[in-house]
Amino acid sequence: MDEISAKAQNAEERGTPKHNVKIIALGGLGEIGKNMYVIEYGEEIVVVDAGVKFPRSDLPGVDYVIPNIEYLVQHQDKVKGIFLTHGHEDHIGGLPFILRELKVPVYGAPLTIGLVRAKLEEHKLDKLVHLQVVKEETVIQLDKLRVHFFHTNHSIPDSLGVAVDTPEGIIVHTGDFKFDMTPVGHRANIFKMSELGSQGVLALLADSTNSEKPGYTPSEKSVGAAVYDTFRTCEGRILFATFASNVHRLQQVVEAAEATGRKIAIQGRSMERVFRIAQELGYIRIPQGMQIDIQQLDKFEDRRIVIICTGSQGEPNAALSRIASGAHSKVQIHPGDTVIFSSSPIPGNTQNINKNIDLLFRAGANVIYGSVIDIHASGHGCQEDLKLMLSLIKPKYLVPIHGEYRMLLKHAQLAEELGITQDRSFVLDIGEVLHLNRRQARKGRKVPAGEMLVSGNKVGQVRSDILADRRHMSNNGVILVLMVVNEDWTAVLSGPELISRGFVFVKEASEIIQRATALTRRAVSRLIKQGVNTEEGWKSRITEVLSSHLEKTMQRTPLIVPILTHLERQEKGPSRKPSRPRRKRATIAPAAAQEPTGTPQK
Amino acid sequence: MDEISAKAQNAEERGTPKHNVKIIALGGLGEIGKNMYVIEYGEEIVVVDAGVKFPRSDLPGVDYVIPNIEYLVQHQDKVKGIFLTHGHEDHIGGLPFILRELKVPVYGAPLTIGLVRAKLEEHKLDKLVHLQVVKEETVIQLDKLRVHFFHTNHSIPDSLGVAVDTPEGIIVHTGDFKFDMTPVGHRANIFKMSELGSQGVLALLADSTNSEKPGYTPSEKSVGAAVYDTFRTCEGRILFATFASNVHRLQQVVEAAEATGRKIAIQGRSMERVFRIAQELGYIRIPQGMQIDIQQLDKFEDRRIVIICTGSQGEPNAALSRIASGAHSKVQIHPGDTVIFSSSPIPGNTQNINKNIDLLFRAGANVIYGSVIDIHASGHGCQEDLKLMLSLIKPKYLVPIHGEYRMLLKHAQLAEELGITQDRSFVLDIGEVLHLNRRQARKGRKVPAGEMLVSGNKVGQVRSDILADRRHMSNNGVILVLMVVNEDWTAVLSGPELISRGFVFVKEASEIIQRATALTRRAVSRLIKQGVNTEEGWKSRITEVLSSHLEKTMQRTPLIVPILTHLERQEKGPSRKPSRPRRKRATIAPAAAQEPTGTPQK
Repeated sequence: MDEISAKAQNAEERGTPKHNVKIIALGGLGEIGKNMYVIEYGEEIVVVDAGVKFPRSDLPGVDYVIPNIEYLVQHQDKVKGIFLTHGHEDHIGGLPFILRELKVPVYGAPLTIGLVRAKLEEHKLDKLVHLQVVKEETVIQLDKLRVHFFHTNHSIPDSLGVAVDTPEGIIVHTGDFKFDMTPVGHRANIFKMSELGSQGVLALLADSTNSEKPGYTPSEKSVGAAVYDTFRTCEGRILFATFASNVHRLQQVVEAAEATGRKIAIQGRSMERVFRIAQELGYIRIPQGMQIDIQQLDKFEDRRIVIICTGSQGEPNAALSRIASGAHSKVQIHPGDTVIFSSSPIPGNTQNINKNIDLLFRAGANVIYGSVIDIHASGHGCQEDLKLMLSLIKPKYLVPIHGEYRMLLKHAQLAEELGITQDRSFVLDIGEVLHLNRRQARKGRKVPAGEMLVSGNKVGQVRSDILADRRHMSNNGVILVLMVVNEDWTAVLSGPELISRGFVFVKEASEIIQRATALTRRAVSRLIKQGVNTEEGWKSRITEVLSSHLEKTMQRTPLIVPILTHLERQEKGPSRKPSRPRRKRATIAPAAAQEPTGTPQK
Repeated sequence: MDEISAKAQNAEERGTPKHNVKIIALGGLGEIGKNMYVIEYGEEIVVVDAGVKFPRSDLPGVDYVIPNIEYLVQHQDKVKGIFLTHGHEDHIGGLPFILRELKVPVYGAPLTIGLVRAKLEEHKLDKLVHLQVVKEETVIQLDKLRVHFFHTNHSIPDSLGVAVDTPEGIIVHTGDFKFDMTPVGHRANIFKMSELGSQGVLALLADSTNSEKPGYTPSEKSVGAAVYDTFRTCEGRILFATFASNVHRLQQVVEAAEATGRKIAIQGRSMERVFRIAQELGYIRIPQGMQIDIQQLDKFEDRRIVIICTGSQGEPNAALSRIASGAHSKVQIHPGDTVIFSSSPIPGNTQNINKNIDLLFRAGANVIYGSVIDIHASGHGCQEDLKLMLSLIKPKYLVPIHGEYRMLLKHAQLAEELGITQDRSFVLDIGEVLHLNRRQARKGRKVPAGEMLVSGNKVGQVRSDILADRRHMSNNGVILVLMVVNEDWTAVLSGPELISRGFVFVKEASEIIQRATALTRRAVSRLIKQGVNTEEGWKSRITEVLSSHLEKTMQRTPLIVPILTHLERQEKGPSRKPSRPRRKRATIAPAAAQEPTGTPQK
């Protein structure tokens, strides 16, 4: 090993050796979301997935988080394509933003590409991107690299694993997977997985989501049975909430509805979209005349209705949430209704879900949810499924992916039980490069990587000071301190006047503001007396004085924003032209995006 | 029943009959938190508990939520005392704020009163309140009412149920409870419960927290066994995080530490406080010399140390969270450490807990938590425990309490299995009055009730517009539009100038601001041309123009705050006295607490 290590060392000192494969995650490690993985060899880069993550509440005003793709943009000529494993948002949601900067073809199975096309249409990008539908048998021959696929089972049809043949060996990426021996839809291609394993796989990138959970994940068919049993016992209407993308679940709901003589109405934009695309592709078969429009609901008896809707995660704007709160214009809950939550609460959503369950109960519905009966099965494999994958693929090296840190770590520990020793499993960070060849693997330097934030339709970097301001204002409100100061800082022509937003909400509000105003007036007198004549000097003194006063009296400090207008010329009489104040341009947010003065208080 | 209904009707038309008992919840229904229950008969009111609730993230800047006690303040002379069931925050946390307005004695068991005293000391109220320690045998004889107690099992020692004897029958309040046949600490007084039941209980107010969960809650002793087994296998240091108030758990940790030859150090203010008070009362027995100061840690081998700390719910400022993030000044994680989360994640806390687990793993610790091994037992009874309580107490009427709506409903459904028919269970709302006497019970009108918000040290009403502003600023930031306008609104002497906070964080920031400024200038020109001469007119036009522009270009609108300084007099040369602008006082927040102009945008 020493000789090889020495060689490798030399090779690295000469620059990255051409005979190494590089594996880099730009997202999806240490998190569930924004999956994006890079497999690089020589002059070719294969990208697997381009997902999005939904921000936690500590990023106010941010709609999405996507991977920072600087590394790919720097090596744009090497990027041969983005290969999608399946159509979930955390695998395709980043495309509308990423494809603005990376002009490369996108490959995926029919349903995946169908969902991507609809998404790009919304962003008016569909005509500008090359979308290529692949089948399981499709082989994409690049220069040294060769990309091919195999069916897996997941909670959305057309899930694929991706195999990349390199001169140093095969790299296998599982996508998201479970093993379902009685699947709805495609069987997982266990034969091909085992064939790859016998050919010799250099490295496996494998889904770690449920690595902490013992046993096997139940089959989707068992959920179908539970759905049917439940439908049979309901005497009134049924509202069935599940993930819009779970086409197999929807198919089973259609079948249970058919068996119990019910019509189906669909509510929720993403649900309607998936139904449409899945039907076009033949993945959902709905008997003629079974689907009805929501307007026609009152033409049928309650016991002849199933409403399939979004909102199983308590998402505030989803159909079921609006129905629960009474805000939905077309569907109102009445006693006799049964609402089924066919899902498992994702951490962070539990309180929203519980709130809706309570509202539905109050409206008179009977609600069936996890604590009562579990009408759901995960799309991710548990421990025994992960071990089965490892046993089929028999990789030399393992890179656990798609998981928070403890899930990745646990996956590596499971692998050790199967003989993949600790030195052959790599729990990486986003941006860390794994260099491998047929004889060894080692971590290298990091490449630029991280998060980009999407707000409205703008994409930008993390600006911790701005987010801090938002949080501050969110927690404590803001006080604007206004005054107009003369040329030489010797007199205040107007003000000081204090205006608060989101700050005081109690009886003593005006008293508090009056005292703070008097305090500011005294501070201003002192400033003039001491001959302080800079904007910065005035602003920091005022901020300091007010913060410390409010902290003492209210145990809380809003964001203090002193706003000084420094008048240099006053016009008398009517004038059509406003004069511009003589102020440094620095107070308007410059290209380097420094937001103006008015020191934020902690 | 008809004759009685008619009688009752007549009685109500004459005014509330004196022979009815009134049960009212001021908190704790439709929620977990701020428990406060009122039992009223004639001229006497008995209050059970005075808790606090921690706000969800949609109440930015609010520290606590407490019950609105207007009803009690209105009838202050009737309130004979606040009777505390146990020392958890959701039962005693509201006292420092409530006792400012309600000067009544407070009764509770020794540990409960000890914790209350410490809390009131912090608020400097301890000398002003009459705190009365009771024992299980204590009887408080009021005029017509008589209050007495019985031990229950819960996750804190000294938990009591409360029984109120009234001329119409006994009202029993369970407090929070489970049944633990092998408790650490007091046995539940099953004999007294069954004695009450045989005397005839009119109504039972019972804890509904775990009503959705089948079976029995495991004994605290089983947790002790699991703790000991785990301690035995650990070779390095142990960090044990649990609820500070779970004295029984702490006692078992002390015993496991003793059995495995370890010293104990305690970290976390609330943990230290509980340890101190519990030791003074003899509820925790720590062998001499076993407890060490955190500074002495390095004097002992790792395998001789247990650090008991706060942070089992991922609370950001708690000891374990700071240790996990590396921010703790005295304790740093190193490989070989074992961290045990002896708790169950409360909905809303899961993501914070997971984040800490990941950080601890990254630092090299082995972490034991729910998904791995469950080293915890709830303090609340599951379905069979609730049925046992119902079987012992045999109430005529049931009022499920201490639960979110679905938990209360489920509790009533369980009671039906035991023969308490639907018309004899009352799932109430906060403020709803239940009128009962020995022959009937019915819901009456609501009394004032709801939430009061505590922010810093101020207590106030919900101000939806202010909270909306905060949320708006939190999500989208704020843009201040400043200008100085002359007397007759015919010229702008300074500005318009736009200052943004928390709004733009992208490369195009200055461009966006410049364009918006130009737009504002044009709007101002139009205003002058059209002869608009009111502040309101200028402000609403500017807000409208900017909002619609930003919505279109950025798909996002910050809070727009136009700030017009209307100069009536300009002084030239040095002056020591600032002049006050001639503006309506209405722009400073008046006593009716209307925050100033600058129309908030949705």
